Amino acid sequence: MGEFMTETKQGPAEPLDRPEGAPSPPVGQEAAALLERARASVEPELRRAVESLPGPTRRVVRYHFGWEHADGTPAAGHTGKAIRPALVLTAVTALGGPQPAAVTAAAAVELVHNFTLLHDDVMDRDATRRHRPTAWTVFGVADAILAGDALQALAQRMLAEDPHPASTAAAARLAACVVELCAGQQVDVALERRGPDEVTLDEVLAMAEAKTGALLGCACAVGGLYAGAGEGDIDALDVFGREAGLAFQLIDDVIGIWGDPGRTGKPAGADLMVRKKSLPVVAALASGTPAGAELAELYASPYEEGHLERTVLAVERAGGRDWAQSQAADRMARAMRGLSRAIPDPEAAGGLLALAEFVTRRSN
Amino acid sequence: MGEFMTETKQGPAEPLDRPEGAPSPPVGQEAAALLERARASVEPELRRAVESLPGPTRRVVRYHFGWEHADGTPAAGHTGKAIRPALVLTAVTALGGPQPAAVTAAAAVELVHNFTLLHDDVMDRDATRRHRPTAWTVFGVADAILAGDALQALAQRMLAEDPHPASTAAAARLAACVVELCAGQQVDVALERRGPDEVTLDEVLAMAEAKTGALLGCACAVGGLYAGAGEGDIDALDVFGREAGLAFQLIDDVIGIWGDPGRTGKPAGADLMVRKKSLPVVAALASGTPAGAELAELYASPYEEGHLERTVLAVERAGGRDWAQSQAADRMARAMRGLSRAIPDPEAAGGLLALAEFVTRRSN
Repeated sequence: MGEFMTETKQGPAEPLDRPEGAPSPPVGQEAAALLERARASVEPELRRAVESLPGPTRRVVRYHFGWEHADGTPAAGHTGKAIRPALVLTAVTALGGPQPAAVTAAAAVELVHNFTLLHDDVMDRDATRRHRPTAWTVFGVADAILAGDALQALAQRMLAEDPHPASTAAAARLAACVVELCAGQQVDVALERRGPDEVTLDEVLAMAEAKTGALLGCACAVGGLYAGAGEGDIDALDVFGREAGLAFQLIDDVIGIWGDPGRTGKPAGADLMVRKKSLPVVAALASGTPAGAELAELYASPYEEGHLERTVLAVERAGGRDWAQSQAADRMARAMRGLSRAIPDPEAAGGLLALAEFVTRRSN
Repeated sequence: MGEFMTETKQGPAEPLDRPEGAPSPPVGQEAAALLERARASVEPELRRAVESLPGPTRRVVRYHFGWEHADGTPAAGHTGKAIRPALVLTAVTALGGPQPAAVTAAAAVELVHNFTLLHDDVMDRDATRRHRPTAWTVFGVADAILAGDALQALAQRMLAEDPHPASTAAAARLAACVVELCAGQQVDVALERRGPDEVTLDEVLAMAEAKTGALLGCACAVGGLYAGAGEGDIDALDVFGREAGLAFQLIDDVIGIWGDPGRTGKPAGADLMVRKKSLPVVAALASGTPAGAELAELYASPYEEGHLERTVLAVERAGGRDWAQSQAADRMARAMRGLSRAIPDPEAAGGLLALAEFVTRRSN
């Protein structure tokens, strides 16, 4: 389900490692500081929660989080970028609420994210995450499935035991989000099995929104709930996180084709070589152009020498890159409208804006 | 995780299909009526909840519940025996609470049970459940995992949206139970991989308690919560369901070796032929008797003609059958003590007692 590129194929990029022409350093610095602060307040809560798990489950989870090596010895692990907890806590602050009261909820959202990562790796047979062998390759498929199941339960338990008046509404929202994440992943698995001409752009956009946008939107909405915001503002915050997530996915897909391998950490065109139906590819296939037809032919035939260059060119000529970039801009505009609806004061909204820009631009 | 024999290998047995010497008909009739009433009140709630799932997820779940065939056409399915919902609702009544207020919670417990069945079938590669191909064999492993994930989320969502004052405590209890179920299943998978001499009786008992007892205990405790019972009574109800569940597992394991295949629906000695470390087997292995040593040897060597009879005899001579039967009686006694602590009035406790007897004796 939704995952940031930096958490999958390559390791966490430096937050300030930004190309020329990217937003001015202060924005990146603000985001980096928000992420660092979120990590610092949420990680002790996460560790406490994980300590409550029975021994065998705990071992798998501690390995997954990078806190332990496979043999159970301590590791100086990097849990991930804590983008979702940062969205929860920054949304609380933006609405004038006290952050500490929402740390449990922020940890619960991060546990749900990690539950989906554990299960996604099993389903996608991904062997590496955060530069380390995935949990299922170390402990087996059953243990990875069970650790994910336990993390979902743990997240809900934490919310059910959290005395904050917003915790029950947050639990309902997070559970509804999990249903959406699962449906998104299910559609993704199904789409990858279908022929290139049997996939529509609307389907792929809806799938990406469910897989990547939903939990980011939920994180912002949970922050709104914990700050005591009204229903309309909470929905607007959800739109903000959701649309920013979709913008991220569009940009990530562009990078997956035209990105600099030295920066992205994956070989150029890797997505194309595995015939991935990423957003620019599906847009190109649906373009009705000669280049789109050529792309369909290339995707339907076995991989040959020289195919990669031709495929990249076909996606570009069919308008896949332009479409993805303008779609990403459109999604960011929608995100901004959601944000200003929920938090009209630009200064108060600054932290969330910085996080959204960090997420969508830093790897551009 | 915990599952009743009638839901796995063979189909649902008739509740009144009971051998000579079993409890008097009225008890079985009372249990059958309680199960039927629970099914009638919970199934509409289950169907409503499942209808709220996105299309692709809903399809897998509707198939799993037996409401649809694999092609999506309606089926006159049998959802299962509804033992857990019946325990929730009967506990509520026993404590003088109104049953209708707890129907959502009863449905949530049943959803959790079915989430574990979907995942267990994937992990154990079981091909049949309730006389039908398991969901993963029809829709694939990914869809079955995701449908299970979604059912866990749906259960928590229902409790989070349930306005009953006990719903939050029930959500916490159910989530904690899921963690225990997962740990039990994890230990089970691990034990099956270990050599027969590397498994202790305490480990297998603890595993069976977590896998089979925990959710039955939780169902009773949730009923107690919804009836407004005090903490001590709720814990006593948990003990009742948990110990009755363990008694059931012990008896089920005995039947798996010495049961009448015509009644159990599985071939005699099937568990032994796959070298299953069931409770009577582990007791026999741990007995320190010559028969126990012979059993260890048989379990360590490849299956040969005549081995089955020798294995059955070795478990019996090593005291495995006697131990399991006296252990089951002991567990039922503990269950009864829990019940009478929570509900001292025998008349009020009658329904729960009938369900426990139904569960543990009907297939004896």
